[in-house]
Amino acid sequence: MSDEATIYRGEPLQTYIDDAASGMPAPGGGSVSACAGALGAALVSMVCNLTIGKEKFASVEGMVRELVARSEDCRARLERLLQDDTTAYNDVIAGYRMPKDTNEEQAARTQHIQQALKHAAGVPLEIARAAVEVCSLSKVAAEVGNPAAVTDAAIGAILGEAAAQGGALNVKINLGSIRDEDYVAACRQELDELLAEAATLRSEVLAITLEKL
Amino acid sequence: MSDEATIYRGEPLQTYIDDAASGMPAPGGGSVSACAGALGAALVSMVCNLTIGKEKFASVEGMVRELVARSEDCRARLERLLQDDTTAYNDVIAGYRMPKDTNEEQAARTQHIQQALKHAAGVPLEIARAAVEVCSLSKVAAEVGNPAAVTDAAIGAILGEAAAQGGALNVKINLGSIRDEDYVAACRQELDELLAEAATLRSEVLAITLEKL
Repeated sequence: MSDEATIYRGEPLQTYIDDAASGMPAPGGGSVSACAGALGAALVSMVCNLTIGKEKFASVEGMVRELVARSEDCRARLERLLQDDTTAYNDVIAGYRMPKDTNEEQAARTQHIQQALKHAAGVPLEIARAAVEVCSLSKVAAEVGNPAAVTDAAIGAILGEAAAQGGALNVKINLGSIRDEDYVAACRQELDELLAEAATLRSEVLAITLEKL
Repeated sequence: MSDEATIYRGEPLQTYIDDAASGMPAPGGGSVSACAGALGAALVSMVCNLTIGKEKFASVEGMVRELVARSEDCRARLERLLQDDTTAYNDVIAGYRMPKDTNEEQAARTQHIQQALKHAAGVPLEIARAAVEVCSLSKVAAEVGNPAAVTDAAIGAILGEAAAQGGALNVKINLGSIRDEDYVAACRQELDELLAEAATLRSEVLAITLEKL
């Protein structure tokens, strides 16, 4: 196995799932959460693409064009995070391998590890943030998009909420080792807010969808 | 565009997500739900693969070997359903294109459509069933698997529940057009039970996980 990270977006879907199932370090739950979020964003884009250009939906055309620009931006961010998460922990591991024979070495090692842990926590935090945005965009898609695709908007919100939960769990693992208490408290606070927002949006989108079925 | 269905498992991950985002008929929310479920099953397998062969977990080795056999079976079923869902609706569309000039033609057309709708509903129903099994396997993984990977077990359950919800919505769209009332009632009953079970399992696995973090 080479040290080069696999660029999963170009690999067959089957390889990505197989590697997730294996005991290999990546992709893990963080990357897979980003993938679920990207798929949710893709479904929002799909609803938009099935709405744009149809006379019946001409009155919302402008709004739906803005919506697809935002869902495609979200999707691109989550696709990047899907990849970033596969290497986010490498620098933490490098830190743990640093020498710790002298006081100076110990201090340098600790500082390196602490910074790397914040970076490693930052990737799934970004996943959770983008995933909540997917939920929010899904709601607009369910409200104004082509009703023939309303279940796709709903599945967008369901996957967005799942990705937010998955991202949050991966932030929390790292928080346990981070000593900067203010950073940890701020992260926990933000995660609580993100997860509450995702749960509310998911319920709202499901209610809108079941109404239209 | 040819009539041949794309075999997505062999296509780059990026192509699958791009096609989901497009206005193309497939992959839609059903296939994407199966994909999320397959990724959840893969995470259960990952937890098993990070547990098996480690002296520390020797006492649960037999149980974890059985668990990985079940999660890999579930994953294979969901990977197949990811593909099946991309063509499940083709036969319904073929039915709607059948001639309806005479009474005989109308009867034959209706019968064809009704059978095809049941088949189309059967695919996402299988997705929901397999996805609930992913939740159930995730719980065992969270309980007895390597605790260093407990968040991966949790994300398995989160994605399993999301896939069950997504599958259920895709069954429900089809039920609206199916005239066999007994079939419809039995499906709705089963979906309610599956979704309740998935929600309970997700909560349980999250509670186990947060306890171990």
